[in-house]
Amino acid sequence: MSPTPFFPVHSETSPESGTDEYYMSMALEEARLASQEGEVPIGAVLVYQNQILAKNHNRREQNRDPTAHAEILVIQQGAGFFPSWRLEDTTLYVTLEPCPMCAGAIIQARIPRLVYGTDDPKSGAVHSLFQLTTDSRLNHRCQIVAGVLREESAQLLREFFRKRRGIR
Amino acid sequence: MSPTPFFPVHSETSPESGTDEYYMSMALEEARLASQEGEVPIGAVLVYQNQILAKNHNRREQNRDPTAHAEILVIQQGAGFFPSWRLEDTTLYVTLEPCPMCAGAIIQARIPRLVYGTDDPKSGAVHSLFQLTTDSRLNHRCQIVAGVLREESAQLLREFFRKRRGIR
Repeated sequence: MSPTPFFPVHSETSPESGTDEYYMSMALEEARLASQEGEVPIGAVLVYQNQILAKNHNRREQNRDPTAHAEILVIQQGAGFFPSWRLEDTTLYVTLEPCPMCAGAIIQARIPRLVYGTDDPKSGAVHSLFQLTTDSRLNHRCQIVAGVLREESAQLLREFFRKRRGIR
Repeated sequence: MSPTPFFPVHSETSPESGTDEYYMSMALEEARLASQEGEVPIGAVLVYQNQILAKNHNRREQNRDPTAHAEILVIQQGAGFFPSWRLEDTTLYVTLEPCPMCAGAIIQARIPRLVYGTDDPKSGAVHSLFQLTTDSRLNHRCQIVAGVLREESAQLLREFFRKRRGIR
Protein backbone atom coordinates (compact mmCIF):
# COMPACT_ATOMS: atom_id res chain seq x y z
CA MET A 1 0.00 0.00 0.00
CA SER A 2 1.47 3.37 -0.99
CA PRO A 3 -1.35 5.89 -0.64
CA THR A 4 -1.04 9.43 -2.01
CA PRO A 5 -1.29 12.17 0.59
CA PHE A 6 -4.52 14.06 0.03
CA PHE A 7 -3.58 17.29 1.76
CA PRO A 8 -0.29 18.85 2.76
CA VAL A 9 1.20 18.13 6.15
CA HIS A 10 1.71 21.37 8.06
CA SER A 11 3.49 20.36 11.22
CA GLU A 12 6.98 18.93 11.12
CA THR A 13 6.03 16.49 13.85
CA SER A 14 2.80 15.24 12.25
CA PRO A 15 3.09 11.94 10.42
CA GLU A 16 2.73 12.10 6.65
CA SER A 17 -0.87 11.96 5.52
CA GLY A 18 -2.11 8.56 4.42
CA THR A 19 0.48 6.54 6.32
CA ASP A 20 -0.23 4.09 9.12
CA GLU A 21 1.25 6.60 11.58
CA TYR A 22 -1.12 9.26 10.28
CA TYR A 23 -4.26 7.20 10.89
CA MET A 24 -2.92 5.91 14.18
CA SER A 25 -2.39 9.48 15.35
CA MET A 26 -6.09 10.03 14.67
CA ALA A 27 -6.93 6.94 16.71
CA LEU A 28 -4.76 8.40 19.48
CA GLU A 29 -6.77 11.63 19.32
CA GLU A 30 -9.89 9.53 19.86
CA ALA A 31 -8.20 7.78 22.79
CA ARG A 32 -7.49 11.18 24.35
CA LEU A 33 -11.18 12.10 24.02
CA ALA A 34 -12.07 8.86 25.81
CA SER A 35 -9.72 9.78 28.64
CA GLN A 36 -11.34 13.21 28.98
CA GLU A 37 -14.72 11.47 29.27
CA GLY A 38 -13.47 9.17 32.05
CA GLU A 39 -13.24 6.16 29.74
CA VAL A 40 -10.23 3.87 29.41
CA PRO A 41 -8.35 5.65 26.60
CA ILE A 42 -8.62 3.49 23.50
CA GLY A 43 -9.40 4.90 20.06
CA ALA A 44 -10.03 3.42 16.63
CA VAL A 45 -10.28 4.55 13.01
CA LEU A 46 -11.67 2.57 10.07
CA VAL A 47 -10.17 3.41 6.66
CA TYR A 48 -11.24 2.38 3.17
CA GLN A 49 -9.01 3.37 0.25
CA ASN A 50 -7.64 6.41 2.07
CA GLN A 51 -11.08 7.51 3.21
CA ILE A 52 -11.94 7.57 6.88
CA LEU A 53 -15.24 5.74 7.24
CA ALA A 54 -15.48 5.99 11.01
CA LYS A 55 -13.53 7.07 14.05
CA ASN A 56 -14.56 6.53 17.62
CA HIS A 57 -13.38 5.68 21.12
CA ASN A 58 -14.26 3.46 24.01
CA ARG A 59 -17.67 4.49 25.41
CA ARG A 60 -18.37 1.59 27.75
CA GLU A 61 -19.11 3.69 30.83
CA GLN A 62 -21.15 6.47 29.26
CA ASN A 63 -23.21 4.11 27.07
CA ARG A 64 -23.48 1.55 29.90
CA ASP A 65 -22.80 -1.01 27.19
CA PRO A 66 -20.15 -3.72 27.61
CA THR A 67 -19.81 -4.01 23.82
CA ALA A 68 -19.08 -0.30 23.27
CA HIS A 69 -15.36 -0.76 22.61
CA ALA A 70 -13.78 1.56 20.04
CA GLU A 71 -13.40 -1.25 17.47
CA ILE A 72 -17.03 -2.42 17.70
CA LEU A 73 -18.27 1.15 17.33
CA VAL A 74 -16.24 1.89 14.17
CA ILE A 75 -17.20 -1.47 12.65
CA GLN A 76 -20.90 -0.81 13.26
CA GLN A 77 -20.57 2.74 11.96
CA GLY A 78 -18.45 1.80 8.94
CA ALA A 79 -20.66 -1.13 7.94
CA GLY A 80 -23.30 1.34 6.77
CA PHE A 81 -21.06 2.29 3.83
CA PHE A 82 -21.01 -1.20 2.37
CA PRO A 83 -23.71 -3.10 0.47
CA SER A 84 -23.29 -6.14 2.74
CA TRP A 85 -21.81 -6.79 6.19
CA ARG A 86 -18.35 -7.45 4.70
CA LEU A 87 -15.91 -4.58 5.25
CA GLU A 88 -13.71 -5.44 2.28
CA ASP A 89 -10.51 -3.48 1.56
CA THR A 90 -10.58 -1.75 4.92
CA THR A 91 -7.89 -1.20 7.51
CA LEU A 92 -8.80 -0.94 11.17
CA TYR A 93 -6.48 1.19 13.32
CA VAL A 94 -6.71 0.80 17.08
CA THR A 95 -4.42 2.07 19.81
CA LEU A 96 -4.52 -1.15 21.91
CA GLU A 97 -4.36 -4.78 20.83
CA PRO A 98 -7.98 -5.98 20.47
CA CYS A 99 -9.66 -8.17 23.11
CA PRO A 100 -11.35 -11.47 22.12
CA MET A 101 -14.68 -9.72 21.41
CA CYS A 102 -13.09 -7.16 19.10
CA ALA A 103 -10.72 -9.60 17.41
CA GLY A 104 -13.78 -11.77 16.80
CA ALA A 105 -15.67 -8.80 15.35
CA ILE A 106 -12.74 -8.10 12.99
CA ILE A 107 -13.05 -11.69 11.77
CA GLN A 108 -16.83 -11.44 11.43
CA ALA A 109 -16.47 -8.21 9.43
CA ARG A 110 -13.79 -9.80 7.16
CA ILE A 111 -11.49 -6.82 7.75
CA PRO A 112 -8.33 -7.64 5.79
CA ARG A 113 -5.82 -5.46 7.67
CA LEU A 114 -5.39 -4.53 11.32
CA VAL A 115 -2.91 -1.98 12.65
CA TYR A 116 -2.59 -1.59 16.40
CA GLY A 117 -0.48 0.40 18.83
CA THR A 118 0.51 -1.39 21.98
CA ASP A 119 0.14 -4.99 23.12
CA ASP A 120 -2.39 -5.95 25.79
CA PRO A 121 -0.80 -8.72 27.86
CA LYS A 122 -3.97 -9.09 29.98
CA SER A 123 -6.54 -9.73 27.26
CA GLY A 124 -4.97 -9.25 23.84
CA ALA A 125 -6.44 -11.72 21.37
CA VAL A 126 -4.35 -10.96 18.30
CA HIS A 127 -0.90 -11.74 19.62
CA SER A 128 -0.64 -11.80 23.43
CA LEU A 129 -3.09 -14.37 24.87
CA PHE A 130 -4.77 -15.66 21.71
CA GLN A 131 -4.01 -15.37 18.01
CA LEU A 132 -7.59 -15.28 16.77
CA THR A 133 -7.08 -13.15 13.66
CA THR A 134 -4.45 -15.49 12.22
CA ASP A 135 -5.94 -18.83 13.25
CA SER A 136 -6.08 -21.10 10.20
CA ARG A 137 -9.17 -22.93 11.50
CA LEU A 138 -11.37 -19.82 11.21
CA ASN A 139 -12.82 -18.66 7.88
CA HIS A 140 -10.96 -15.33 7.83
CA ARG A 141 -7.47 -14.18 8.66
CA CYS A 142 -6.05 -10.70 8.51
CA GLN A 143 -2.73 -9.01 8.00
CA ILE A 144 -1.43 -7.47 11.20
CA VAL A 145 0.89 -4.54 11.80
CA ALA A 146 1.70 -4.10 15.50
CA GLY A 147 3.54 -1.38 17.37
CA VAL A 148 2.57 1.73 15.37
CA LEU A 149 2.87 4.68 17.81
CA ARG A 150 3.19 2.04 20.51
CA GLU A 151 4.76 4.27 23.13
CA GLU A 152 2.17 7.06 22.78
CA SER A 153 -0.68 4.54 23.13
CA ALA A 154 0.89 2.85 26.14
CA GLN A 155 1.71 6.18 27.78
CA LEU A 156 -1.93 7.34 27.54
CA LEU A 157 -3.12 4.16 29.24
CA ARG A 158 -0.47 4.34 31.96
CA GLU A 159 -1.38 7.98 32.73
CA PHE A 160 -5.08 7.16 32.86
CA PHE A 161 -4.68 4.31 35.33
CA ARG A 162 -2.18 6.25 37.44
CA LYS A 163 -4.62 9.15 37.77
CA ARG A 164 -7.51 6.81 38.52
CA ARG A 165 -5.58 5.08 41.28
CA GLY A 166 -4.73 8.49 42.70
CA ILE A 167 -8.36 9.56 42.79
CA ARG A 168 -9.74 6.44 44.41
CA MET B 1 -30.94 -22.61 40.55
CA SER B 2 -34.51 -23.78 41.13
CA PRO B 3 -36.74 -20.96 39.90
CA THR B 4 -40.47 -20.91 40.63
CA PRO B 5 -42.68 -21.05 37.53
CA PHE B 6 -44.44 -17.72 37.16
CA PHE B 7 -47.35 -18.88 35.06
CA PRO B 8 -48.91 -22.27 34.39
CA VAL B 9 -47.68 -24.40 31.53
CA HIS B 10 -50.55 -25.22 29.19
CA SER B 11 -49.10 -27.61 26.67
CA GLU B 12 -47.94 -31.07 27.68
CA THR B 13 -45.01 -30.77 25.28
CA SER B 14 -43.86 -27.33 26.43
CA PRO B 15 -40.98 -27.32 28.88
CA GLU B 16 -41.81 -26.25 32.41
CA SER B 17 -41.70 -22.50 32.88
CA GLY B 18 -38.50 -21.12 34.35
CA THR B 19 -36.31 -24.06 33.37
CA ASP B 20 -33.34 -23.93 31.01
CA GLU B 21 -35.42 -25.82 28.44
CA TYR B 22 -38.15 -23.21 28.76
CA TYR B 23 -35.86 -20.28 27.97
CA MET B 24 -34.05 -22.24 25.29
CA SER B 25 -37.37 -22.95 23.58
CA MET B 26 -37.86 -19.17 23.44
CA ALA B 27 -34.41 -18.77 21.92
CA LEU B 28 -35.43 -21.42 19.36
CA GLU B 29 -38.52 -19.38 18.53
CA GLU B 30 -36.22 -16.45 17.84
CA ALA B 31 -34.04 -18.68 15.66
CA ARG B 32 -37.12 -19.64 13.65
CA LEU B 33 -37.91 -15.95 13.10
CA ALA B 34 -34.34 -15.46 11.82
CA SER B 35 -34.84 -18.29 9.36
CA GLN B 36 -38.07 -16.74 8.07
CA GLU B 37 -36.14 -13.50 7.50
CA GLY B 38 -33.43 -15.28 5.49
CA GLU B 39 -30.92 -15.08 8.33
CA VAL B 40 -28.86 -18.00 9.65
CA PRO B 41 -31.23 -19.29 12.37
CA ILE B 42 -29.68 -18.46 15.73
CA GLY B 43 -31.67 -17.03 18.62
CA ALA B 44 -30.81 -15.76 22.09
CA VAL B 45 -32.59 -14.81 25.31
CA LEU B 46 -31.14 -12.90 28.27
CA VAL B 47 -32.67 -13.70 31.66
CA TYR B 48 -32.24 -11.99 35.02
CA GLN B 49 -33.86 -13.61 38.06
CA ASN B 50 -36.58 -15.25 35.98
CA GLN B 51 -37.28 -12.08 34.03
CA ILE B 52 -36.61 -11.96 30.34
CA LEU B 53 -34.59 -8.81 29.71
CA ALA B 54 -34.14 -9.30 26.00
CA LYS B 55 -34.72 -11.79 23.22
CA ASN B 56 -33.48 -11.47 19.69
CA HIS B 57 -32.03 -13.30 16.71
CA ASN B 58 -29.29 -13.02 14.18
CA ARG B 59 -29.88 -9.93 12.01
CA ARG B 60 -26.57 -9.72 10.17
CA GLU B 61 -28.02 -9.56 6.67
CA GLN B 62 -30.94 -7.23 7.26
CA ASN B 63 -28.95 -4.82 9.46
CA ARG B 64 -25.90 -5.11 7.17
CA ASP B 65 -23.94 -5.29 10.40
CA PRO B 66 -21.31 -8.00 10.99
CA THR B 67 -21.74 -7.61 14.76
CA ALA B 68 -25.52 -8.18 14.71
CA HIS B 69 -25.36 -11.70 16.13
CA ALA B 70 -28.19 -12.74 18.47
CA GLU B 71 -25.93 -12.66 21.55
CA ILE B 72 -24.57 -9.15 20.87
CA LEU B 73 -28.09 -7.82 20.32
CA VAL B 74 -29.48 -9.21 23.60
CA ILE B 75 -26.43 -8.01 25.53
CA GLN B 76 -26.79 -4.48 24.12
CA GLN B 77 -30.54 -4.52 24.75
CA GLY B 78 -30.26 -6.03 28.24
CA ALA B 79 -27.47 -3.70 29.37
CA GLY B 80 -29.99 -0.86 29.53
CA PHE B 81 -31.58 -2.48 32.60
CA PHE B 82 -28.43 -2.28 34.69
CA PRO B 83 -26.80 0.71 36.38
CA SER B 84 -23.42 -0.17 34.85
CA TRP B 85 -22.21 -2.29 31.93
CA ARG B 86 -22.00 -5.41 34.13
CA LEU B 87 -24.83 -7.89 33.51
CA GLU B 88 -24.63 -9.49 36.94
CA ASP B 89 -26.83 -12.48 37.86
CA THR B 90 -27.91 -13.03 34.27
CA THR B 91 -28.08 -16.16 32.16
CA LEU B 92 -27.62 -15.96 28.42
CA TYR B 93 -29.41 -18.62 26.37
CA VAL B 94 -28.33 -19.12 22.78
CA THR B 95 -29.16 -21.89 20.33
CA LEU B 96 -25.62 -22.23 18.90
CA GLU B 97 -22.25 -22.22 20.67
CA PRO B 98 -20.99 -18.60 20.57
CA CYS B 99 -18.26 -17.49 18.14
CA PRO B 100 -15.13 -15.67 19.41
CA MET B 101 -16.83 -12.25 19.13
CA CYS B 102 -19.85 -13.33 21.15
CA ALA B 103 -17.86 -15.36 23.70
CA GLY B 104 -15.72 -12.25 24.14
CA ALA B 105 -18.83 -10.10 24.61
CA ILE B 106 -20.08 -12.51 27.29
CA ILE B 107 -16.76 -12.02 29.11
CA GLN B 108 -16.90 -8.24 28.68
CA ALA B 109 -20.46 -8.18 30.07
CA ARG B 110 -19.45 -10.39 33.05
CA ILE B 111 -22.37 -12.72 32.33
CA PRO B 112 -22.07 -15.47 34.97
CA ARG B 113 -23.98 -18.26 33.22
CA LEU B 114 -24.24 -19.37 29.60
CA VAL B 115 -26.60 -22.03 28.29
CA TYR B 116 -26.30 -23.07 24.67
CA GLY B 117 -27.90 -25.58 22.34
CA THR B 118 -25.60 -27.17 19.82
CA ASP B 119 -21.82 -27.07 19.35
CA ASP B 120 -20.28 -25.11 16.49
CA PRO B 121 -17.24 -27.10 15.32
CA LYS B 122 -16.33 -24.40 12.75
CA SER B 123 -16.09 -21.36 15.02
CA GLY B 124 -17.28 -22.23 18.51
CA ALA B 125 -15.25 -20.34 21.10
CA VAL B 126 -16.66 -21.79 24.30
CA HIS B 127 -15.82 -25.45 23.82
CA SER B 128 -15.06 -26.44 20.22
CA LEU B 129 -12.15 -24.33 18.86
CA PHE B 130 -11.39 -22.10 21.83
CA GLN B 131 -12.41 -22.13 25.49
CA LEU B 132 -12.58 -18.36 25.99
CA THR B 133 -15.26 -18.25 28.67
CA THR B 134 -13.36 -20.59 31.00
CA ASP B 135 -9.80 -19.35 30.37
CA SER B 136 -8.15 -18.65 33.72
CA ARG B 137 -5.98 -15.88 32.24
CA LEU B 138 -8.97 -13.64 31.54
CA ASN B 139 -10.67 -11.57 34.23
CA HIS B 140 -14.03 -13.34 34.00
CA ARG B 141 -15.16 -16.91 33.63
CA CYS B 142 -18.67 -18.25 33.37
CA GLN B 143 -20.58 -21.38 34.14
CA ILE B 144 -21.56 -23.27 31.00
CA VAL B 145 -24.43 -25.63 30.30
CA ALA B 146 -24.21 -27.14 26.82
CA GLY B 147 -26.62 -29.27 24.82
CA VAL B 148 -30.00 -27.90 25.98
CA LEU B 149 -32.45 -28.64 23.11
CA ARG B 150 -29.37 -29.49 21.07
CA GLU B 151 -31.15 -31.53 18.41
CA GLU B 152 -33.82 -28.88 17.75
CA SER B 153 -31.15 -26.18 17.34
CA ALA B 154 -29.00 -28.31 15.05
CA GLN B 155 -32.01 -29.38 12.99
CA LEU B 156 -33.02 -25.76 12.33
CA LEU B 157 -29.52 -24.94 11.09
CA ARG B 158 -29.33 -28.07 8.91
CA GLU B 159 -32.70 -27.29 7.30
CA PHE B 160 -31.70 -23.68 6.66
CA PHE B 161 -28.47 -24.58 4.89
CA ARG B 162 -30.09 -27.42 2.96
CA LYS B 163 -32.74 -25.05 1.63
CA ARG B 164 -30.17 -22.37 0.82
CA ARG B 165 -28.04 -24.82 -1.14
CA GLY B 166 -31.16 -25.84 -3.03
CA ILE B 167 -31.96 -22.24 -3.97
CA ARG B 168 -28.51 -21.24 -5.11
